[in-house]
Amino acid sequence: MASRFKLALIQICTQRYREHNLKKAEQMIREAARNGASVVVLPEYFTCWMDPKYFIEYKELPDGPTSTMLSRVAKETNIHLFGGSFPEEIPNSDKLYNTCHIYGPTGELTQRFRKLHLFDVDLGPGMSIRESELNVAGDKLTVVNVAGCKTGFGICIDLRYPEIARLYGNMGCQMLTYMGGFSMKTGPSHLEILQRVRAVDNQVFVANVGPATNTEAPYVTYGHSGVADPWGNMIAKTGSDEDIVYADIGQYNCFLVLYLDHPCFCC
Amino acid sequence: MASRFKLALIQICTQRYREHNLKKAEQMIREAARNGASVVVLPEYFTCWMDPKYFIEYKELPDGPTSTMLSRVAKETNIHLFGGSFPEEIPNSDKLYNTCHIYGPTGELTQRFRKLHLFDVDLGPGMSIRESELNVAGDKLTVVNVAGCKTGFGICIDLRYPEIARLYGNMGCQMLTYMGGFSMKTGPSHLEILQRVRAVDNQVFVANVGPATNTEAPYVTYGHSGVADPWGNMIAKTGSDEDIVYADIGQYNCFLVLYLDHPCFCC
Repeated sequence: MASRFKLALIQICTQRYREHNLKKAEQMIREAARNGASVVVLPEYFTCWMDPKYFIEYKELPDGPTSTMLSRVAKETNIHLFGGSFPEEIPNSDKLYNTCHIYGPTGELTQRFRKLHLFDVDLGPGMSIRESELNVAGDKLTVVNVAGCKTGFGICIDLRYPEIARLYGNMGCQMLTYMGGFSMKTGPSHLEILQRVRAVDNQVFVANVGPATNTEAPYVTYGHSGVADPWGNMIAKTGSDEDIVYADIGQYNCFLVLYLDHPCFCC
Repeated sequence: MASRFKLALIQICTQRYREHNLKKAEQMIREAARNGASVVVLPEYFTCWMDPKYFIEYKELPDGPTSTMLSRVAKETNIHLFGGSFPEEIPNSDKLYNTCHIYGPTGELTQRFRKLHLFDVDLGPGMSIRESELNVAGDKLTVVNVAGCKTGFGICIDLRYPEIARLYGNMGCQMLTYMGGFSMKTGPSHLEILQRVRAVDNQVFVANVGPATNTEAPYVTYGHSGVADPWGNMIAKTGSDEDIVYADIGQYNCFLVLYLDHPCFCC
């Protein structure tokens, strides 16, 4: 990794109305930039509550109000902005993508990532979710080079697939960025260990940012955004409340030097 | 999973001499069987200290003293015995396999597993290891069906490869059994989270058994044998000392029912 940068994860507490969320997100991005972050990451669905009826209400085309704000603020603060996700309208379809836009310091849209795996689960009574009823999965890995550090992207349940992390690792990524609003059931059990093991498996930094816990929301998210280093230690993390998490991303000597080079029949 | 069984992990404290280790292992297997275990697992290299010079001293052909003891005791105690590993001599070669023999309750050798990935690492000053200088990697996955539970096998660093766990998961395994003597450096940081995440990723039980910590050995192992359930909780574990760890393996409803069924471009 050629150089170091300061990463900021914006653990916004999303509310009912998009206008409020965009305003709050802008304030928090500006605060992170003032504090020296050159790469700022927003969480999954920071524009609205995580529920199909809000996705339908707040779906946007790629040049909608969320993208407009993100582009403007990236430029005004001179940062790389990994813009969380918004429900992306698909023309001539009643389905949506779960989409992340990535902006460079000049405000240009440099990359787009669409969530690869949909969250269809049965977590027990009252927790049956079928994201595939409304959403369509993306089909492309996305890599961005920031300050000499290649970063791969995933959204929420994408973190559960070791294949994605491995593919990014094989592509030379030194950091993986997930924007995932884990639930209050899965988050405490799985979020941190999944991050740490994807980091160790592939000798990369792994960041995840989710919305803060809001018990008034229809789907309550766990928060606990943070960053694991390539040894699997959490070098930065927060709890459930609205917060900005900072981490220095930089040089790292892989401890298993030959480990990823070994040819074998299964990998 | 059709039925339940009691699993026992034999965290033996290996000593310098094979004869001692075989005798001690037999005692511990018999104790586990008396306590109701029908599947008993020994650790990696339980016959000798983990160092090339002891491997050369104690290498065996497949019908050597270790195998003879394991077969006899499996039959006499009427158990399934996953026989840890021993340095397997390769005829007409100066290299070895790291080999596990698996015995059924009649004492027959039902399967053989050879470690798939060799431990070549640089863990900092004084901890540079090249298992590949003496050993040859195996090239076959191994699955055993015990009481309706399909189990896949790995040895030590094989646990670091998510591909292996996934392949076994795709083959219908409900349990993965690793026999791994993690080091005092990697064990505390990685052993438990690797087990837990392989379990969650694939919705399987994951057991690992290593030798107890013996500070007189040339390579000091971490111990901490245990079992993770498919939710990623450790349902049984021990510390550094010689011990037998017991766990009930049985029915489990996968929480991410559709999760593993989703077709996607990367898996």
